[in-house]
Amino acid sequence: MGPQRSYGREATQAAFLLGGIGTGNVSIGSRGDLRDWEIFNRSAKGQKLSYSFFSIAMRRPDGETVAHVLESRLVPPFADSHGIDPNQVAGLPRLEDSSLWGEYPFVYVDFEDESLPLEIQLEAYTPFIPHEPDESGLPVAVLTYRVVNTGSEAVDVTIVGSLMNAVGWTGMADFGRVKTDCFGGNVNEYLEEDGLKGLHLTSGKHPEGSLLHGSLALATTNPKTTVKRHWLRSGWWDYIREFWDDLADDGVLTDLGYTEPSEEGKYDVGSLGVVETIGPGESAEFRFVLSWYFPNRVHNWDQRKADGSCGCDCEQEAVRNRYAARFNSAWEVSKYLVENLERLEELTRTFHGALFNSTLPAHVLDAVSSNITVIRSPTCFWLEDGRFFGYEGCFDDAGCCSGSCTHVWNYAQTLAFLFPSLERSMRETEFGVETNEEGWMSFRAHHAFPSDRSWDEMEAASDGQCGSVIRLYRDWRLSGDTDWMKSLWPGARRAVDYACATWDPDGDGVTSGKQHNTYDIEFYGPNPLSGVMFLGALKAASRMAQEAGDAEASKRYLDLLERGSVNLDGALWNGEFYVQRLDDVDAYKYQHGVGCLADQLLGQVNAHIAGLGYLLPTDHVKGAIGSVFRHNLLTDFSEHDNAQRTYALNDEVGLLACTWPEGGRPRIPFPYSHEVWTGIEYQVAAHLIMEGHVDEGLAVVKAVRDRHDGVRRGPWNEVECGHHYARSMASWGVLLALSGFSFDVVEGEIGFDPVINADEFRCFWSTGTAWGTYSQTRNPETGGLAWDVDVLHGSLEGVKVKVEEP
Amino acid sequence: MGPQRSYGREATQAAFLLGGIGTGNVSIGSRGDLRDWEIFNRSAKGQKLSYSFFSIAMRRPDGETVAHVLESRLVPPFADSHGIDPNQVAGLPRLEDSSLWGEYPFVYVDFEDESLPLEIQLEAYTPFIPHEPDESGLPVAVLTYRVVNTGSEAVDVTIVGSLMNAVGWTGMADFGRVKTDCFGGNVNEYLEEDGLKGLHLTSGKHPEGSLLHGSLALATTNPKTTVKRHWLRSGWWDYIREFWDDLADDGVLTDLGYTEPSEEGKYDVGSLGVVETIGPGESAEFRFVLSWYFPNRVHNWDQRKADGSCGCDCEQEAVRNRYAARFNSAWEVSKYLVENLERLEELTRTFHGALFNSTLPAHVLDAVSSNITVIRSPTCFWLEDGRFFGYEGCFDDAGCCSGSCTHVWNYAQTLAFLFPSLERSMRETEFGVETNEEGWMSFRAHHAFPSDRSWDEMEAASDGQCGSVIRLYRDWRLSGDTDWMKSLWPGARRAVDYACATWDPDGDGVTSGKQHNTYDIEFYGPNPLSGVMFLGALKAASRMAQEAGDAEASKRYLDLLERGSVNLDGALWNGEFYVQRLDDVDAYKYQHGVGCLADQLLGQVNAHIAGLGYLLPTDHVKGAIGSVFRHNLLTDFSEHDNAQRTYALNDEVGLLACTWPEGGRPRIPFPYSHEVWTGIEYQVAAHLIMEGHVDEGLAVVKAVRDRHDGVRRGPWNEVECGHHYARSMASWGVLLALSGFSFDVVEGEIGFDPVINADEFRCFWSTGTAWGTYSQTRNPETGGLAWDVDVLHGSLEGVKVKVEEP
Repeated sequence: MGPQRSYGREATQAAFLLGGIGTGNVSIGSRGDLRDWEIFNRSAKGQKLSYSFFSIAMRRPDGETVAHVLESRLVPPFADSHGIDPNQVAGLPRLEDSSLWGEYPFVYVDFEDESLPLEIQLEAYTPFIPHEPDESGLPVAVLTYRVVNTGSEAVDVTIVGSLMNAVGWTGMADFGRVKTDCFGGNVNEYLEEDGLKGLHLTSGKHPEGSLLHGSLALATTNPKTTVKRHWLRSGWWDYIREFWDDLADDGVLTDLGYTEPSEEGKYDVGSLGVVETIGPGESAEFRFVLSWYFPNRVHNWDQRKADGSCGCDCEQEAVRNRYAARFNSAWEVSKYLVENLERLEELTRTFHGALFNSTLPAHVLDAVSSNITVIRSPTCFWLEDGRFFGYEGCFDDAGCCSGSCTHVWNYAQTLAFLFPSLERSMRETEFGVETNEEGWMSFRAHHAFPSDRSWDEMEAASDGQCGSVIRLYRDWRLSGDTDWMKSLWPGARRAVDYACATWDPDGDGVTSGKQHNTYDIEFYGPNPLSGVMFLGALKAASRMAQEAGDAEASKRYLDLLERGSVNLDGALWNGEFYVQRLDDVDAYKYQHGVGCLADQLLGQVNAHIAGLGYLLPTDHVKGAIGSVFRHNLLTDFSEHDNAQRTYALNDEVGLLACTWPEGGRPRIPFPYSHEVWTGIEYQVAAHLIMEGHVDEGLAVVKAVRDRHDGVRRGPWNEVECGHHYARSMASWGVLLALSGFSFDVVEGEIGFDPVINADEFRCFWSTGTAWGTYSQTRNPETGGLAWDVDVLHGSLEGVKVKVEEP
Repeated sequence: MGPQRSYGREATQAAFLLGGIGTGNVSIGSRGDLRDWEIFNRSAKGQKLSYSFFSIAMRRPDGETVAHVLESRLVPPFADSHGIDPNQVAGLPRLEDSSLWGEYPFVYVDFEDESLPLEIQLEAYTPFIPHEPDESGLPVAVLTYRVVNTGSEAVDVTIVGSLMNAVGWTGMADFGRVKTDCFGGNVNEYLEEDGLKGLHLTSGKHPEGSLLHGSLALATTNPKTTVKRHWLRSGWWDYIREFWDDLADDGVLTDLGYTEPSEEGKYDVGSLGVVETIGPGESAEFRFVLSWYFPNRVHNWDQRKADGSCGCDCEQEAVRNRYAARFNSAWEVSKYLVENLERLEELTRTFHGALFNSTLPAHVLDAVSSNITVIRSPTCFWLEDGRFFGYEGCFDDAGCCSGSCTHVWNYAQTLAFLFPSLERSMRETEFGVETNEEGWMSFRAHHAFPSDRSWDEMEAASDGQCGSVIRLYRDWRLSGDTDWMKSLWPGARRAVDYACATWDPDGDGVTSGKQHNTYDIEFYGPNPLSGVMFLGALKAASRMAQEAGDAEASKRYLDLLERGSVNLDGALWNGEFYVQRLDDVDAYKYQHGVGCLADQLLGQVNAHIAGLGYLLPTDHVKGAIGSVFRHNLLTDFSEHDNAQRTYALNDEVGLLACTWPEGGRPRIPFPYSHEVWTGIEYQVAAHLIMEGHVDEGLAVVKAVRDRHDGVRRGPWNEVECGHHYARSMASWGVLLALSGFSFDVVEGEIGFDPVINADEFRCFWSTGTAWGTYSQTRNPETGGLAWDVDVLHGSLEGVKVKVEEP
């Protein structure tokens, strides 16, 4: 509840990603700037697109015109080796200040400048409709500037978007110059079609199958435009001079009349302006549609293979993006968007309202919504054939840690609830492609999508493989699609049997031996991470086996679960939490031993979310997760001695991956033991809330988001082993936990049991078939509870709603 | 007068360069951190050397030990894609706060931590003795930590330096890892020799001629050491864990006993600790000597040729650094330093005292001293054969803009006064090598040192070529070495005759036609930058010709000067300043026309410094430079419309390269016209002061240094077209101007005429043969002036001192 945080221009890490699923992105920075142009099928943090920015010119009745770059002023440092590059037009006047806030998928920037009688606000978004991945997968951004004239006379306001024709883009060279090798034959056209007017930027140089093939478009639905298709073709920075003088003179652009494509090694910048006359006290909207179309991505997990060190004629095998199946150019994308704008925008606003018009705490909404970004970041991609893949996260310039890694995506909940078909595509890959005849599952999907590195010799990941079984169960219960579950059951059964044979050879239901896991090492012997996840997999598998008509397996798994639950609890419970049992914790490197592992109950929280219930004694589970909070939440890091990577420091607050409250730290504990991962923090927060430790769970969420304040870290970019890290999508679990949401579309029932603001509660929900809002209000006089489920998309036909009356 | 500014830990741009002339550098950051390891014969801004840092452990009598990294805490952003890399040990505890200040060549860091009963101060420097380039050219840094025990009990304090054996360094790979291809066979030895104890880090892998060949050493003169020659050879980040646990346990290091060199693809980190027991109220010094030895640099202006994309066996032609002629290893460097420490340190402190114990304003001392850094930055290099070269500045990773560019170095004064023999080496290159038979001078020295790009077809630079003639005169008068001047006279005469024939074909003494210049374009027609510089060259040439026995040329130049002075003044003086005269300013691109060019009197100020006097009517010169201040100093940049590079913005103050106070801006003015260059600002400031506009000159200097506040820009790195830009060495002229220093060692006279704090004045001075301090005090009662010249180095034998009595 309450408004989202806003970020001033000093919040240099606040970058709000626009762009659809599998389309790449351009971000809006806290100064209202366009930044991080990641439209070329890979991440590109810090990548600026030269001369691509908005400007505003205001012309008074007497003709006096003032022009500004439509960004607020730059913030330090200003220490670039050659001054700030002209391609950022940093030397042109800007507005005094700005303030950005985001409510995904919408971002707003308020500009302030006392010298202008104008109030200027930018709203930007890319259509986002849960359960409609195609409509949420458009390579486009809608940017609407709303300008109010607060002065006493009418003024003409021109807002101009400038955009380089980046078809042929291969990066930056020295002196702030663009690498020019692959430019030439670039064409900037001005088109008007069905209420859409604007620039279409193409090139004849790169054939359809080329990684460099593509187009961009900058268009508007406003009627009155002013256009400069090409900036001055000249040396030095003459073109900026000419553009700025032209704009600042009278707010009207002059087309320079060029008719030829760009010369070899050259590109052009084009500018599209919208002009509105605004009377005193009146306002106007300037709507721009920015679209891009780079349909081909390199057919390899190593995106740096696309670096083009072999020049423009590089022959790299390409594969097409999903959006390429629907469109042939950026202009077509813009046309489609405008033709369908009413529906796309309405449903996007419906989702936004459903999520944010909620009584959940603001920082929870922040955590839940901001990490949706991962799905539409360069961490993920989506192919023409419908398959969805994800890295773990991103380097600055490429995806990092390939293969929809099962043990990382294990923590993610967001995708399953917002785009369940895409989440199911990952199960299809896991059980349909990556699980071999012996049941060994490659925890990185490199059979489904190629990699130069072979993972075939790698151990299976016990947490990832067992976690996928739980997730299969979750996705089945969410969708109610039993046929789909059954189609994957053979693979899942092999995977479960492999897990039993490999990690529980003695059949006591407690995993032992060498257990590779998400810490990139192997745990040995009985340990809670592997062990509890295994129990969850057994419970899920037992139920799925039953439904698949595999009664023998179902019973076998259930028996093993019952044994395992007792045995694991007996072996690992230390009275306060679950520990790893090893006679000599230093016999192997990288164990945790008697440490308090934050992830000790990951299997349990995932089981809870999937609807599998308790795997271990309830009181022990409740106690253990409480112990994790008590021991692992560090409220000041200044004396923490972490020899690993640093995600929290100084006076920050964060939840440690492991602590040793009673001593007993191994000489060399597992890598990451001293680190702080938001994905762990969220799963623990969700679990704390589920087990009744609501305040504790909220405190953990608050700690995470306080660290991501735009100055220290990006609010829409929770980093772990890469930007936009998939594990951060554990944050969706916090929404599930606070609303007490349960679902079983197979059985036809969903339920709510809010644990916060229960007297006046509103929250978003989704299943695999529908989404909407749930609200309940307690009558303060009668004590009775009135509740309502509003289905905003899809259908709950045949599904009952169960509300817990206290 | 007054102390130098200090920089808090938020001043992320404050990096103080250690290292000698032509040796490369390592810098001290505002947190007391070692940063920007530029020891590998090229610039490397932002380059961290893994695991290379200092730590402090304090052990109480009860054995309780606390350990901290001896840096203050990190400052935002913390947004690296993978958290902060372990190689920065960012997760280990640090001290609360710090404050850095520098008085070149000394830097100080005060550390603060309320939890420790210790006051800790670092002093660091590299020996710097004007007129002794070899002693100022040692690849070494002396770091002394002074620790005061403010507690009530004695404590054992251990300060530990850790350093990676970086022999084989080729940069960083993903995940914060070092590129390992060229490591292997690395040897970490502990040596004790003649009071020096420490680690010598070498490798057997790279032969003597290889670009990767070299060594490092970390040693101490303190008697009690504790050593870990090698960190744990293990996986992940185990070695940090082991090192830190070892240190934090009791402040004593355990050597792990390895005897073999590192394996192929591996390197080792070594740690050297110094232990001192410090009683209550007592203090101790911990002195470390850090040296490096990478004798070979690539024999090409393009330093990226050394990138080694061909692997470790790259055969790139190498050339040896000057220091390689004296030493064979880093250990030898350290030994030499320690053996000569008393003299080196004393003379360094003498210079420091002479410069800073002055009544010049603090911001002037700041400007004058800070840009000395350029000489000892990666912008310059110095070869075994004694030749000294400079880029214009540096990219982040390599020198930028090759060839000791005459038109950029034209502004630099610092080197001529501090290391005149090196400055003379540049004249020898210019007139001895780069001036061809026709008198065309390559304004980039690519004949003397190779470049893959041919500059032979390039126009001569009128300002650079004429400026070199003035600088030859300056260097002659500074040194009194007439034989040296005569040896270069033939080349200089050809250069002057070429200038006359090329830029003044009609012999009216006013340059015209096409005049390439420091704005990287050509001015056409009569213009003050070229024209005045030409007059200065004529005056200098006339005098040198006379001395060289070339009376005909002497008279010819003098006649031309006289004509030119009258004609130029007549043609270009607009009543307020000097303008360019062109019938149609837009007939050529990139002119300035009637604009007020800040550089219009560069030739005049250089003539003043050289002792050539006025070239144009005195009142016009005084008026014109005043006009430059009035028109070109912009006190707020927020509405400035600069389409070029940005060096000043928002509410900053700076001097514009050109303005058009009466209008008449060309459609496309010259590149850089709207920029702010510190080199121009300083030459204008010096000139303002010389012409009596003292407050105005000081205001310009203040503006420059205010922009370099450590948060926005680096105080020891004034950037223009590259880091540590050579033009910034114009700042020395401000010292000359304020002290009214004149010199003519040929005639045997130097003079002083302070224009600030004249009643109580102290200032550094130097000629080509001596340096020291000048002081004067006015008796407030008698009004009489007592003055003193203290010769601190060299000799003024045969030189009279002339002091202007008012």
